[in-house]
Amino acid sequence: MSQQPMIRVTYRIETPGDPEALAAKIASDQSTGTFTELPGETEALRARFAARVEKVVRLDDSPVPGFPTDEAGPFHRADATIAYPLEAIGTDIAALMTVTVGGVYAARGLSGVRVMDFDLPQEWACHPGPQFGIDGSRRLMGVDKGPMIASIIKPSLGLTAEETAEVVRTLCEAGVDFIKDDEKMMNPGYAPLEARADAILPVIEDHYQKTGKRVMYAFGISSADPDEMMRRHDYVADRGGLAAVVNINSIGHGGMSYLRKRSKLCLHAHRNGWDILTRHPALGMEFRAYQKIWRLLGVDQFQINGLQAKYWEPDESFVRSFHAVREPIFSEADRPLPVVCSGQWGGQAVETYNRTGKTLDLMYLGGGGIHGHPMGPGAGVRAIRQAWDAAEAGLTLGQMAADHPELDAALKKWGTPEMLGA
Amino acid sequence: MSQQPMIRVTYRIETPGDPEALAAKIASDQSTGTFTELPGETEALRARFAARVEKVVRLDDSPVPGFPTDEAGPFHRADATIAYPLEAIGTDIAALMTVTVGGVYAARGLSGVRVMDFDLPQEWACHPGPQFGIDGSRRLMGVDKGPMIASIIKPSLGLTAEETAEVVRTLCEAGVDFIKDDEKMMNPGYAPLEARADAILPVIEDHYQKTGKRVMYAFGISSADPDEMMRRHDYVADRGGLAAVVNINSIGHGGMSYLRKRSKLCLHAHRNGWDILTRHPALGMEFRAYQKIWRLLGVDQFQINGLQAKYWEPDESFVRSFHAVREPIFSEADRPLPVVCSGQWGGQAVETYNRTGKTLDLMYLGGGGIHGHPMGPGAGVRAIRQAWDAAEAGLTLGQMAADHPELDAALKKWGTPEMLGA
Repeated sequence: MSQQPMIRVTYRIETPGDPEALAAKIASDQSTGTFTELPGETEALRARFAARVEKVVRLDDSPVPGFPTDEAGPFHRADATIAYPLEAIGTDIAALMTVTVGGVYAARGLSGVRVMDFDLPQEWACHPGPQFGIDGSRRLMGVDKGPMIASIIKPSLGLTAEETAEVVRTLCEAGVDFIKDDEKMMNPGYAPLEARADAILPVIEDHYQKTGKRVMYAFGISSADPDEMMRRHDYVADRGGLAAVVNINSIGHGGMSYLRKRSKLCLHAHRNGWDILTRHPALGMEFRAYQKIWRLLGVDQFQINGLQAKYWEPDESFVRSFHAVREPIFSEADRPLPVVCSGQWGGQAVETYNRTGKTLDLMYLGGGGIHGHPMGPGAGVRAIRQAWDAAEAGLTLGQMAADHPELDAALKKWGTPEMLGA
Repeated sequence: MSQQPMIRVTYRIETPGDPEALAAKIASDQSTGTFTELPGETEALRARFAARVEKVVRLDDSPVPGFPTDEAGPFHRADATIAYPLEAIGTDIAALMTVTVGGVYAARGLSGVRVMDFDLPQEWACHPGPQFGIDGSRRLMGVDKGPMIASIIKPSLGLTAEETAEVVRTLCEAGVDFIKDDEKMMNPGYAPLEARADAILPVIEDHYQKTGKRVMYAFGISSADPDEMMRRHDYVADRGGLAAVVNINSIGHGGMSYLRKRSKLCLHAHRNGWDILTRHPALGMEFRAYQKIWRLLGVDQFQINGLQAKYWEPDESFVRSFHAVREPIFSEADRPLPVVCSGQWGGQAVETYNRTGKTLDLMYLGGGGIHGHPMGPGAGVRAIRQAWDAAEAGLTLGQMAADHPELDAALKKWGTPEMLGA
C-alpha cells in the first residue's frame, strides 16, 4: 500500500492559525472532505485515496497577509508537502490542476498560498515533452555552439505583411539566427497570418539561397480555437516555416496539447499572463512548478525574461527560472531552450553567463537592442555576439569593447559604469 | 477613423505614482511600445492601431499595496478604461487575452492591477455561446419552472463505479433534477469514466422508465488532451448521457473551444483555480470579466458558489457573480444557468432569492445538505424545495418549517436563530 506511486505537491502556505492544521485541511479537502459527516465515507476508503501531509517546514512569520484579512497577524508561513496517491489523480494534467491546485486556492483559513513545486512520479513521463528542445533548435537553426541570437519584429503591431517582410530582410542581413513575431501579433485584419507567411518565408528562403543560413522565423499562430490554430500551423509548416510563437496561457492546456500532438514546428512559448500567478510572492504559483507542466505539454523554447528586464521581474527570479528550465524532469530531452529576453542588448551577457551556470545553451533575444543600435541592426547583432564572446572568454564588457566598436557603441548608448568595467 | 469598433477593457490599477500616467503606459505597452525609440514607428501608424485611454476614474487611496513593494504609499487607485481598436485584436479570445490582459500583469510601476470588465463590440457575437443555457437545461431536465434541485456524489473520491451508481439511485429516488460528479472526479484508475457511465446511465434510464423523470447526470469528462476529452464526451453522449462537468481553467480556452464545437452535452462549468485570480481584490480579474469569456466559449451552466459558502468567497461576491451571469452579453441566449452551490442545504434559499432579483432560473446544488439530512436524502431534497417555496411565497424559513418536518429538521441541524425567524 505504501509503495504506490505518489504525486507530491509543495505549497507555501500562510495563515493566522496553525500551519500544520491548515496543511491537514488542504489534504482532506482535496480528497474526500465535505462540511458534514457522511455515512459512506469509511476509514478504509480514506486510507487508500486520501492525500497525506508528508512534511511541514516552518518559515519566518510575515507581518502582513498575502490576501487581505480582518484577522490579526502575525501570519505563520510554512512549506507543506502533500502526497496524493497517483491512483486518485492519474496522469492527466487537467486532473492534476483541479485536484492539487484549483481547489486549494479557494480554502478558508489561509492568508496566502503558493504552489512551489510538483514532484511527479515516473508514470508522468508519458507526456510528449519538447519535440525539438535544445538540440532540435540548434539543428534547425544550424547553430552548433554558442548562444542563438534572436530578434523580434519592431514595431510590434501595425506593420503590413510587406512591411514586416522588409524588417525580416534587415534582420536576416544583420545576422540573427531567429526572428519572431511579437506575442501580440497573431492574425489581425491588417496583417493576417497567411499574408505574413507569404511575404516573410520567401525572404527567409532568399537569404538561405544567398548565404546558406536558414533563419528560423516564429509566426504567432495562437488561437483559442485549436482548429484555427492548426490551420495556421499547417499554413506555416506547408510553406517551409520552422517555428511558431505560442501564447501558452491564452490557448490553455487543451490548446497546447492538441497542437503538440500534430505539430511540425518548433514551439516558442510566451508566458504572458503568468505574472499574475507569481508576482505576489505569497500567492499563486512559482515558475519552477508552472514550467514543468508546459514542458510536459511540449514547449521547445521558453521565454523567461532576462537580467534588468523591462518588466517587474527581479533578477533573482529570472536566475531561478533559468535553472528551473535547465533541470531535467525525467530526462535531458525534456529540457526546452531557455530564451533570455526583454530589454536585452548584450550588456547583460557577462552577468547572465556567470549567474546561470556558464552555459551557452540559450537563445538571447534583442528587440530594441538590435533595431535601435546606433550603427544599425547588423552592428546590434555583432555587439551582442561580442558581449557573449566576452562572457565565454572571461573578459569584461569594457575589455571586449576596447577593440570592438559595435559593443563599444552599445555600451555608450545603454551601458552603466559597472558594465564598462569602471 | 473614429467610427471603427473598439474593445474596451476596464482595469482597476494601483500605483504609488500617477494613475493617469500608468494608464497611458499600459495603453502604449500593449500596442507599439518598446524600451527605445524605433525609426519605423510613425505617428500615423500609432494613430491607427494604438490603444487609447478613454477614462480614468480615481478611487480612494489604499494604505497598503496589492503587490509588495519597497515604494512608500499611499497607493493611488483608479478604474482606467482603455479602448483597443478591433482591427488590432480581431475576435480571437487568445488575442484578447494576450493583448489586453497578459502583458498588463507584467508592467512595472503598478502595485495592483485587476481586470474589471470587457466591453466587446458586436463583432464578438460570432462566438458560439451556450448551446443549451437556461431554456435548454430546463427542457432536458423537464423542469418547466422553479429552481432545478441538484446534488453531487459523496464521498467525492474513492467510490467504485458500482458504488457510485448506488448513490445515483438513492439521489434519483430522493427526487433531484440533476446529479454531478465531484469536480475532482474525472478518470481515476479505480473508477474510470467508461465504467461510471456504464454503471450510472442504466440507473438513470431505469428511474425514467419507472417515473417518467429523466435526471440529468453530469460526468466529469475534463482532460487536458482535447482528443481524450472528446472520447469521453462521445462515450457519454452515445449512451444517452445529457451533461458533463468541465473544469474550465484546467482545460483552458482551447479545450473548451474544441469541446463546444463538437458537443452534444450540456456543459456544466466548474471554475476551480479561479480564486487565485480574484481573491485579492487589488489583483487578477473580476468574475464579471472572466465569466464573459467562458460564456462566449459555450458554458451552459456556471457554478458560482452561494451565500455562506464553505469557501473563502464573501456573500457580496456571490451576489455580484449571480447578477453578472444573468446579464446578456449580446442576447438572452448567451446567459448560462447560474448554479448556486457550496455548503447549500436550503437555509440560504430565502436570502438568495431576495438578493438575486427574485428569480427561480437557477440550479441549487446541495451536497452534504442532501446526503446528510437527518431524515435521509429524500427529506433533504424536500427540505430544499420547501425552502424555495418559502422564498417564492414570501415566508420565512421558520414559518414554512412549522408544518414541513423535513425543512424543520434541516433548520434544527444546520440553521441559525435568524433563519428560524427568531
